[in-house]
Amino acid sequence: MNKAMNELLAEMTLIEKASICAGLNMWMTKGIERLNIPPVHMYDGTNGIRKTNSDEEMGITTENVPATCYPTGSAIGSSWNTELLHEVGVALGRESKAMDVELLLGPGVNMKRTPLGGRNFEYYSEDPCLTGELGAAFINGIQSEGVGASLKHFAGNNQEFEKMVTSSEIDERTLREIYLSAFERIIKKSDPWTVMCSYNLLNGTYTSENEHLLNDILREEWGYEGVVLSDWTAVNDRIRGLKAGLDLEMPGPANYNTKAIVEAVQNGTLSEEQLNRSVARILKLVERVTGSQSTDTDSHGDQNYHALARKAAAESIVLLKNENAILPLQQESISSIAVIGRFAKKPRIQGAGSAKVTPTSVDIPWDEIKNLAGASVTISYAEGYPEDDSIQEELIKESVSLAVNSDVAVLFVGQPEYAESEMHDLKSIDLPEHQVKLIQAVAAVQPKCIVVTSSGSALVMRPWVQHVPGVIHSWLSGQGMGRAIAEVLFGQENPSGKLSETFPVKLSDNPSHMRIRGENGKLYYREGLFVGYRYYDRKELAPQFPFGHGLSYTSFSYTDLEVGQGDKGVTVSFQLKNTGKRKGKEVVQLYVHDEECSWNRPEKELKAFAKIELEPGEQRKIVFELEERDFSYYNTKYSRWVAESGFFQIALGSSSRDIRITERLYCNFGKEEITFHKFSLLSEWLSDPAAKTVLEQCLDEMNKHVTDKVYLNEEFIGFWEDFPVVKLFQMFGQNWMNERSPDEVIHDLIARVEKARNV
Amino acid sequence: MNKAMNELLAEMTLIEKASICAGLNMWMTKGIERLNIPPVHMYDGTNGIRKTNSDEEMGITTENVPATCYPTGSAIGSSWNTELLHEVGVALGRESKAMDVELLLGPGVNMKRTPLGGRNFEYYSEDPCLTGELGAAFINGIQSEGVGASLKHFAGNNQEFEKMVTSSEIDERTLREIYLSAFERIIKKSDPWTVMCSYNLLNGTYTSENEHLLNDILREEWGYEGVVLSDWTAVNDRIRGLKAGLDLEMPGPANYNTKAIVEAVQNGTLSEEQLNRSVARILKLVERVTGSQSTDTDSHGDQNYHALARKAAAESIVLLKNENAILPLQQESISSIAVIGRFAKKPRIQGAGSAKVTPTSVDIPWDEIKNLAGASVTISYAEGYPEDDSIQEELIKESVSLAVNSDVAVLFVGQPEYAESEMHDLKSIDLPEHQVKLIQAVAAVQPKCIVVTSSGSALVMRPWVQHVPGVIHSWLSGQGMGRAIAEVLFGQENPSGKLSETFPVKLSDNPSHMRIRGENGKLYYREGLFVGYRYYDRKELAPQFPFGHGLSYTSFSYTDLEVGQGDKGVTVSFQLKNTGKRKGKEVVQLYVHDEECSWNRPEKELKAFAKIELEPGEQRKIVFELEERDFSYYNTKYSRWVAESGFFQIALGSSSRDIRITERLYCNFGKEEITFHKFSLLSEWLSDPAAKTVLEQCLDEMNKHVTDKVYLNEEFIGFWEDFPVVKLFQMFGQNWMNERSPDEVIHDLIARVEKARNV
Repeated sequence: MNKAMNELLAEMTLIEKASICAGLNMWMTKGIERLNIPPVHMYDGTNGIRKTNSDEEMGITTENVPATCYPTGSAIGSSWNTELLHEVGVALGRESKAMDVELLLGPGVNMKRTPLGGRNFEYYSEDPCLTGELGAAFINGIQSEGVGASLKHFAGNNQEFEKMVTSSEIDERTLREIYLSAFERIIKKSDPWTVMCSYNLLNGTYTSENEHLLNDILREEWGYEGVVLSDWTAVNDRIRGLKAGLDLEMPGPANYNTKAIVEAVQNGTLSEEQLNRSVARILKLVERVTGSQSTDTDSHGDQNYHALARKAAAESIVLLKNENAILPLQQESISSIAVIGRFAKKPRIQGAGSAKVTPTSVDIPWDEIKNLAGASVTISYAEGYPEDDSIQEELIKESVSLAVNSDVAVLFVGQPEYAESEMHDLKSIDLPEHQVKLIQAVAAVQPKCIVVTSSGSALVMRPWVQHVPGVIHSWLSGQGMGRAIAEVLFGQENPSGKLSETFPVKLSDNPSHMRIRGENGKLYYREGLFVGYRYYDRKELAPQFPFGHGLSYTSFSYTDLEVGQGDKGVTVSFQLKNTGKRKGKEVVQLYVHDEECSWNRPEKELKAFAKIELEPGEQRKIVFELEERDFSYYNTKYSRWVAESGFFQIALGSSSRDIRITERLYCNFGKEEITFHKFSLLSEWLSDPAAKTVLEQCLDEMNKHVTDKVYLNEEFIGFWEDFPVVKLFQMFGQNWMNERSPDEVIHDLIARVEKARNV
Repeated sequence: MNKAMNELLAEMTLIEKASICAGLNMWMTKGIERLNIPPVHMYDGTNGIRKTNSDEEMGITTENVPATCYPTGSAIGSSWNTELLHEVGVALGRESKAMDVELLLGPGVNMKRTPLGGRNFEYYSEDPCLTGELGAAFINGIQSEGVGASLKHFAGNNQEFEKMVTSSEIDERTLREIYLSAFERIIKKSDPWTVMCSYNLLNGTYTSENEHLLNDILREEWGYEGVVLSDWTAVNDRIRGLKAGLDLEMPGPANYNTKAIVEAVQNGTLSEEQLNRSVARILKLVERVTGSQSTDTDSHGDQNYHALARKAAAESIVLLKNENAILPLQQESISSIAVIGRFAKKPRIQGAGSAKVTPTSVDIPWDEIKNLAGASVTISYAEGYPEDDSIQEELIKESVSLAVNSDVAVLFVGQPEYAESEMHDLKSIDLPEHQVKLIQAVAAVQPKCIVVTSSGSALVMRPWVQHVPGVIHSWLSGQGMGRAIAEVLFGQENPSGKLSETFPVKLSDNPSHMRIRGENGKLYYREGLFVGYRYYDRKELAPQFPFGHGLSYTSFSYTDLEVGQGDKGVTVSFQLKNTGKRKGKEVVQLYVHDEECSWNRPEKELKAFAKIELEPGEQRKIVFELEERDFSYYNTKYSRWVAESGFFQIALGSSSRDIRITERLYCNFGKEEITFHKFSLLSEWLSDPAAKTVLEQCLDEMNKHVTDKVYLNEEFIGFWEDFPVVKLFQMFGQNWMNERSPDEVIHDLIARVEKARNV
């Protein structure tokens, strides 16, 4: 804390300090006029700015101030493009400035545990490395413009069902390796000005008052110095929250808590130092907000935002299937296209809830297809299915008739509008029945059938995917989505998105399928580390489309893999070549597998990736540098990250199930000496030369006094190796120990081992 | 405790009391001569008596006193025949008496969580209802002869890997519904004289000192009054164990603990009452052992044990596959049989470890096939595969040549001898590679190929099962197994066994596949309730052969299902008819599914079964009576079993995946009134008429003071229904509450609801 801040703090009264720890209203912090402390204005937004018409208003179900609507999290997560995320972040920072928004409440970086998560559309991925890299780039972009970001929802808020009264029960290792890992990466790489705690309890304590989460991990371990604010109404026990490091309560004014804080300081329940700590952080946020200026103040109202939204959408779209190169559509060989499905005219560009932006304009797929098709191609439209869930055979008949009489059919389908919203988990990831029937009916008469799907989560495609040659997943890709789809269809854009989450064959394949909803206020994350592709790999279960999958109109080769361990870590390099006839972008994915860890580890884990654009025939050497952490797991015995020496596999692929090139590498991370304790096993005693000698001497002595003697031959060891040595004395040494206890015997042996080692 | 016992207790010195709480040696309790308290002699045995040559000796790797070897647990568990289990129990009781064994250390009734469990062969099933019924019948049989049984291993010992230093981490509901359920049923139905605690820790505490397990659940809830003894060396902290209710430490003399107990009583750490409680139970055991006489003392050395072992084996064997009715073999149409595989001459009749019996005689399949085939059939033999794991092409060639020149080939294969043993989990459930190659090679040349598999756990059959028309799983079925297999092959026995566990397509299909081994001393049972078929059902995953599956040489029909709820429970009846041409036994299985429970429940659960023998054409009405408990789940909120009113499905089948007849039934178990608390959700408030009125009045009042007003219309409720009402005040009522806290507001509302209800 600088001097000015210290002085400011000294000037504040206790009531002022207590009061500034909650907002003024729904969207502002409190300013203190007499001290020239201005308020901070903040608004929602993970893929755009949701600024309400007044600062007193929640505005979830109303129209708000128009702003650019970028692709939602799962969409832009599929771009795998950190530069793009940075660019969108910069644009959002500028647009925020232009709209007097000083703090933008995003990004959301929770892991996708289940495809039913109601807010999945806001989140990037099922993988923490991908999420972390994208989230850091996005925040660096926003904050480079002098606007703060809010990293959320910290942590363990991966479903919506009764989230405000449910404890996410996550074991420490899973927490570190999966659910906190992206947050950690982002904190370290982008220093967000604020972190927003989540609604849920984590292992029995609300995150808004979770000392282990906010203090031990976020502040102490990761060194975070910014403001932690509450999700809206997430505060429960305000005093406990302040102690744990929850600085700012939103919304305000929460006068009852101002009073409670003052009383707590006065009666000693809360120390004034603890309060000062939070106030100082809030003052620093004010300073950051007021002190920083963007580099280019003139362009805040830049009209190129829509173009960027289109570009981002184009990078997000994933070409899932392209049999017989049905795509891109060749205008020269097509004279008519049937465009079928309501979504062609009423696209779903985003999900519902606090992230829902009132867009500045929306590209309509139908319009954009007409624009790009050219005059020689006739485009016709059929609604396909009604707005509600009813099955209207007339609409299907009309579509079939249109498809039969066209050269190609392009169907627009997806999750219905009501299905994906904050506060409510999805009930299904199947397409509505009327859409499934539509696809089946059209595909039966028109073999050149392309399906464009929209949803913020994975979809089940089993009932129809094998009947159609082309599938494009457009996610919920914001206001430029319509144009981007048309560009992909006609090949003006070479698709480069890769799935940021696994598309399962059926919902029940998902690892969390046994326990999506909590019971008695607890939701156990029992699949543990095995989230997303980590589960499908371990279970040898084929997904419909794997994590990292996405096709291109060109092709790439991977050759010349070289790996080596140096002083600083492991260097991986290889040659990537565009072997096709079009310019294109490949997302190269680097996975690591620990072949011989003493702890249970996934078959592979994403540790690095890059999106590379190459001209046809162009080849480039790609280099990744891996650190020890990339080979580590979180060891709960030592409470730290551990990399064990041994063989690792380095695998490079075009998807998690399309590994192109692999290499084994012995990595030396040192070795720890066994620490013997009361329950050390026979096998452990025998693996250490000093311990083995001590044990053998002891057994020789014991055997003099017992009838059922212990000889450490192969047969004995074969049966008893997992027995603690102390229990061998209980089993075979009773008449030798007499009144000496097995504890005394084993502790004496351990002392002898230590003595022998120190000689 | 009766008067004599009280007097005896009063006469004992403190040292005598402390001392009697541990054994004298490996297999005896201590007697006290001056008080005429004799010792009790106990020996291992889940499927036979393993009496060592001396009482000082463990004898795991040596030959012991010969005794009848019955089918192992997983084998006899597949008989689904409670009468048979009782009969075997009676026989074991008699043989024990004849061998001066007063307490037989069995049965083992742990659930099969993973097919890799090293002691799975000793345990009955993956289902607690089946296990419980069989275990109770077995114990009632043994104890009817005046010999005690020991119900083990209590509890949560479902794997062998580092079991002595690993805590089985099992949530309370899973514990009650899966892992303790069979124990509870057995305690209540057969009152075993002793219960043996397990080696492992359960939720962080050794079971040998686990107050919650031994005292709260076993004694208090279930009313158990017998002796709890330790598995051999399972005692850790003796004083803590005594307090928790661990009466008898084995083996003894554990003089150091006698001393420790005396000191603990003297210094007040342990009350003498607590010690007396355990001593009294041990004295009562002595009284039971000495006081009871079997009904028929002459027949203790009965030579019909071997015949019973054969009969039990015949009931245990499961006919898995029988394409084109290849079985039974018809002597009239066959002139030669190739018997292939070492196991035909060296059958595996049991597993290794403390349950390994030295059999009195062993039926050899090869001999029995020759005996039953008749003179007209030529039988020839090929070894097929060597004793070790090497692949010897010569042996395969010889087998192929023999098979080609015979009318039928019968292959004997299975898990190798070393694979299945106490103390070590299996590494695989695939057949060894040399056996797979053998089957594939023989099946390629001889379409009439029957495979007889031996193992104590499920096997993976994917690489070969589709190539052979007949598969018999013989388990490890004891000394009569060879004869029983021959009888099934030739149709003298109509097979009636049903799988007591799921046979998966591949090992990774198993629910525990992500976490079979513990880490850092903890093994999380993360699949929870979804063990065995409960998992395959929920995951919509097809097993190779489902739980409850087993074919017969005849067929059965299920008709006329009637269900109805009466005062005492639900009565289920139906007609079972033998529709084939042979006498046979059908195992009818009754599964219950709760269609609308507020808690997560499996798709179906076995709640009753019966094995019924019918003559060809015979029909019989089968009646089951179900109790409320059969419709209940364990509710951890209320810490009791709860049956929720609503629709249930009653399904009767010939296997868990061959349901023949179902009925829906509305069951009325009453309804509980909502108890409102601070975090009750909007949906809960609106579901209760009194609460709804109170809330509406409150919101009317609030709306007068705020700008963003709350109207409980469809749109508002649709979004906010899962929000706690207290948080709605935090979100929308800040300017109304002012210095009143949301807590005060909500508690006031709850008081008004209670008042309204009481009017």
